[in-house]
Amino acid sequence: MTDLWIDNERLTKQISFLVEIDKLKTVLRKTFLIDKSRLENTAEHSWHVSLMAVVLLEHANEPSLDLNRIIRMLLLHDLVEIDAGDTFAYDSQGYLDKEEREQAAAARLFGMLPDDVKGEWMTLWREFEDGTTREAKYAAALDRLQPVIHNHYTGGVSWKKNGIVRSQVLKRLDPVRETSDTLWKFAQEIIQRSIDMGILFDDPTAKEV
Amino acid sequence: MTDLWIDNERLTKQISFLVEIDKLKTVLRKTFLIDKSRLENTAEHSWHVSLMAVVLLEHANEPSLDLNRIIRMLLLHDLVEIDAGDTFAYDSQGYLDKEEREQAAAARLFGMLPDDVKGEWMTLWREFEDGTTREAKYAAALDRLQPVIHNHYTGGVSWKKNGIVRSQVLKRLDPVRETSDTLWKFAQEIIQRSIDMGILFDDPTAKEV
Repeated sequence: MTDLWIDNERLTKQISFLVEIDKLKTVLRKTFLIDKSRLENTAEHSWHVSLMAVVLLEHANEPSLDLNRIIRMLLLHDLVEIDAGDTFAYDSQGYLDKEEREQAAAARLFGMLPDDVKGEWMTLWREFEDGTTREAKYAAALDRLQPVIHNHYTGGVSWKKNGIVRSQVLKRLDPVRETSDTLWKFAQEIIQRSIDMGILFDDPTAKEV
Repeated sequence: MTDLWIDNERLTKQISFLVEIDKLKTVLRKTFLIDKSRLENTAEHSWHVSLMAVVLLEHANEPSLDLNRIIRMLLLHDLVEIDAGDTFAYDSQGYLDKEEREQAAAARLFGMLPDDVKGEWMTLWREFEDGTTREAKYAAALDRLQPVIHNHYTGGVSWKKNGIVRSQVLKRLDPVRETSDTLWKFAQEIIQRSIDMGILFDDPTAKEV
């Protein structure tokens, strides 16, 4: 703990946490910005998906989702990457110990907050990770849809670079299929157009999905 | 308008808007990341202040602020910079036509959304700009406090680079003074420590504030 700010231990913890999470701006994802100038970082990604949640809420199948909880979930869902790094969505090796690495990261990061709120943040993060509530599913849907939009509009630069094929993309989009008929139709169309444009490879497995 | 997505004009507008706002990730502010590696961009800044709003809410003088509205306001408050650029907080020349430039930007950007929600977004943005409601004041407080924290933790790099003195910083922090006794005490202490460390210049005018 650094020196206390205004003799207030709670505030000092909160400020330390807010300073610490600045590091998320230096965690790079595999997705490019739409202008292709550079890779996207996880902080700006979190901002983008949070705004997507607001804009696209009307397309969720379930009415009256708790937008407040959805946005808070999306703002914090990737904080663990500060310690655990960004595990590429299609990196099966990296996924082997992803859970463990991220759990330790959550304990350290949310542990910086005052004790009585630490649990609340852990719970919210776990809710997103478990993906069982309606809100967590909708939040995950946007988190999965956003890189597909980026890939489409950048000529599939990240898909090509990483040899990603249709069936892999479709599988990642399960939360979209589960939460929004409209967004699921859109996801299928953007994937089909990407294939037609030659920026995403088709594969036989995809037909079965 | 690009080709329609799934024959759905509403969704097509929303997707165009969400693609357009990706540009906020390339708008650079005058503030450095805390690791000093580069300037901060406005998208990641918007993420950071939104999370600050959640973490520090308990310090607002007014109880029961509408956090949902505060976060939505902070997520969108700087979108206008896509067209209008980031006007440095201490650039009095730039401030002369800031209002006009940003109004035009808001009209264009929010005008990309379906008609029935466009007005809602304009209203929320205007609420932040006018800064008269309790929520807008609290949102502004964080928007003003965040760069001060960054400056303190980076050894005042942006203050020094731009010749900023104490009275200017204090004046920018009016919304903090108006909304939170705790955060205002913190702001005064972080400024005093910065002066003591020699990373922010003191000036006579400051005494009068």
